[in-house]
Amino acid sequence: MVYIAVMGHGVVGSGVVEVLQQNHAGITSRSKEDIRVKYILDLREFPDLPYADRFTKDFEVIVGDPEVKVVVETMGGLHPAYEYVKRCLRAGKSVATSNKELVACKGAELLRIARDNNVNFLFEASVGGGIPILRPISQCLAANDIFEIVGILNGTTNFILTKMIREQMSFADALTLAQELGYAERDPSADIEGQDACRKICILASLAFGKHVYPEQVGTDGITKITLTDVEYAGSDNCVIKLIGRAKILDGGHIFSAVYPALVSRESQLSSVDDVFNAVMVRGNAIGDVIFYGRGAGKLPTASAVVADVIDCVKHLSARKYLFWEDGKEGYVSDPLEDNTRLYVRAKTEDKTAAAEEIRRTFEDARILSRPCEDRQELAFITPMSTERTLRRELAALTSLRVESILHVLD
Amino acid sequence: MVYIAVMGHGVVGSGVVEVLQQNHAGITSRSKEDIRVKYILDLREFPDLPYADRFTKDFEVIVGDPEVKVVVETMGGLHPAYEYVKRCLRAGKSVATSNKELVACKGAELLRIARDNNVNFLFEASVGGGIPILRPISQCLAANDIFEIVGILNGTTNFILTKMIREQMSFADALTLAQELGYAERDPSADIEGQDACRKICILASLAFGKHVYPEQVGTDGITKITLTDVEYAGSDNCVIKLIGRAKILDGGHIFSAVYPALVSRESQLSSVDDVFNAVMVRGNAIGDVIFYGRGAGKLPTASAVVADVIDCVKHLSARKYLFWEDGKEGYVSDPLEDNTRLYVRAKTEDKTAAAEEIRRTFEDARILSRPCEDRQELAFITPMSTERTLRRELAALTSLRVESILHVLD
Repeated sequence: MVYIAVMGHGVVGSGVVEVLQQNHAGITSRSKEDIRVKYILDLREFPDLPYADRFTKDFEVIVGDPEVKVVVETMGGLHPAYEYVKRCLRAGKSVATSNKELVACKGAELLRIARDNNVNFLFEASVGGGIPILRPISQCLAANDIFEIVGILNGTTNFILTKMIREQMSFADALTLAQELGYAERDPSADIEGQDACRKICILASLAFGKHVYPEQVGTDGITKITLTDVEYAGSDNCVIKLIGRAKILDGGHIFSAVYPALVSRESQLSSVDDVFNAVMVRGNAIGDVIFYGRGAGKLPTASAVVADVIDCVKHLSARKYLFWEDGKEGYVSDPLEDNTRLYVRAKTEDKTAAAEEIRRTFEDARILSRPCEDRQELAFITPMSTERTLRRELAALTSLRVESILHVLD
Repeated sequence: MVYIAVMGHGVVGSGVVEVLQQNHAGITSRSKEDIRVKYILDLREFPDLPYADRFTKDFEVIVGDPEVKVVVETMGGLHPAYEYVKRCLRAGKSVATSNKELVACKGAELLRIARDNNVNFLFEASVGGGIPILRPISQCLAANDIFEIVGILNGTTNFILTKMIREQMSFADALTLAQELGYAERDPSADIEGQDACRKICILASLAFGKHVYPEQVGTDGITKITLTDVEYAGSDNCVIKLIGRAKILDGGHIFSAVYPALVSRESQLSSVDDVFNAVMVRGNAIGDVIFYGRGAGKLPTASAVVADVIDCVKHLSARKYLFWEDGKEGYVSDPLEDNTRLYVRAKTEDKTAAAEEIRRTFEDARILSRPCEDRQELAFITPMSTERTLRRELAALTSLRVESILHVLD
């Protein structure tokens, strides 16, 4: 019998209790461990639940109980999750969390504290919900040098973009629908502004490249400015618009990392990842491209990833070493504007012929797009490949058009 | 310093040596292990290789050397791989293999011998080449009851079908092209008759459900009888034809397992898995559907999966327990004809009106298909859902048409 505690009885936390109960027979027979929830920490009262007697409002009860070997953190947010997790690790308890903000902001420190105390700090559920991603990446890493990770990391924005692409729904209507269906929160900014995807790419980049990439080091752009016009132009070029999280290792060992909406070719496997689904593509020098796909959120998928971590903790009560990264030296994250890319540009112009000519003069090989019922004053094109800094400087110098939208093109 | 031996210097075996050399720095720094190849077993001579001095033709040298802690088996075939692996395990050496035939036919026995000798028997590379699949399934299994696995498990047949679907190439021409490109062997029967996919679904089913499923227990059908006519009818119903490996757990705990070409809806993520790519969909009660996608074959991807197993063996020289299954009791595999399914049927008839009427009389809700330039004597339809046994009996009783092709429809 191994006792655990669950901190936070929200969507994921209550799911953890549910999965442990529902699949108790299978878990016990496969893992040879009888895992019991001893405490649930929550400030709210749940008097009608069959396990109402396990609730506590006092963190000290959990951290002070030597019987509790593993603590699940599903409170979300940085505080007090950070302080509680730190104290649990220092008290010799392993921690499994689904809290991406915590891992993205404090991962290196918490991993170090876990190692120093010979316990585990695991967070499979923090990226991709129930999809196994972090352990498979460690496994790829065992024999491969991973050079890039590209992912569709946020289900809410992917749902909104899918509705815009497939049903020509406006951004505002698609967002409202996502909120009605429970895919988006009442304050949807963390999703639609890209912060959620940013936290996830931080975790993936840190794991793949061994140095902590912090959210403030990642250029982050959301989908709030995407219009149906952009969707249509992308379609005319056999592309769809997806919110992409991307991290790659550059020559010289610098890390590039960004979150942005990008035109993705329909030839790419990522283009068919629709609705609330997530996918992460891992590119290694021996393995080639591998993709992990599934529901990136949801109560039971996410809870099942937390429970898998709990089982791993229970089976290995002293620290495992496969998940680890440390803080990087100064300047290890590159300036995103130095990245080579192509850009999609939509602009207004008084004189389309003159504008097209200026574009062709400025960008050799620029490709001008067209769409049905195109506005007479509207022009969209794809630049050739160059550093983003150069492209933006050249775009700013154009005199015959006024740029309204710039998006990346995923190559 | 840990010494290993590689048995078989073919495509995968030489790739293992190459990955270990090429990524030596990264592997050593991440795993903290310096892995060296001490022997390579092959009956052929490779005098020009820089590591020519490590070759031996004598298995006894390897099995008798206590310095060798891990043995890689990439010889393929059952004999002498089976005897050699057994002797290595009994000599206290862990074994990593890419040999699907060996695992599909002898897995339960070899896993038991490994456990009894407190060493590891690992075979990630035997399914899906470099794609991490077996460990992620163990991870899913930790918290989930998996109820079904569906996969595109053979790259050669998927390449051939993709050419037939996208370029209207005939089966024979697509096979010739696959041979020219090195995707198909001179004797392609193991691929096109479905045996290769059968071995892989055996391994997946055994792992997911904990009981060894043997190749002879799996109804196996290849793609040799698929025609462009079938491809066209499938397309008219918004489907593509894919060679599917499938395993599910039925009420009462029986295992259903089969390999067959099936109509897959274009709405399914599996329908866009093209060319030599593989994908495995795992369905669990908490996690929902998760897909693992990538190159299912190839020298370096497969070798990198073997090397990941080697590293795992080196880091855990005594047995780990996450990969295990045993022999099932009698009758644990169900009769595939008892499975509920819909069937695609193509037939010849003298009288299309009478035939269509007989079909509608026999199968309520049968759906008659049509294609451009349809032959006057040709008729294709999709049956409603029933057990395959019932459907085949009813098809055999039809008097106004002669069935030429029957395919499954993946639901």
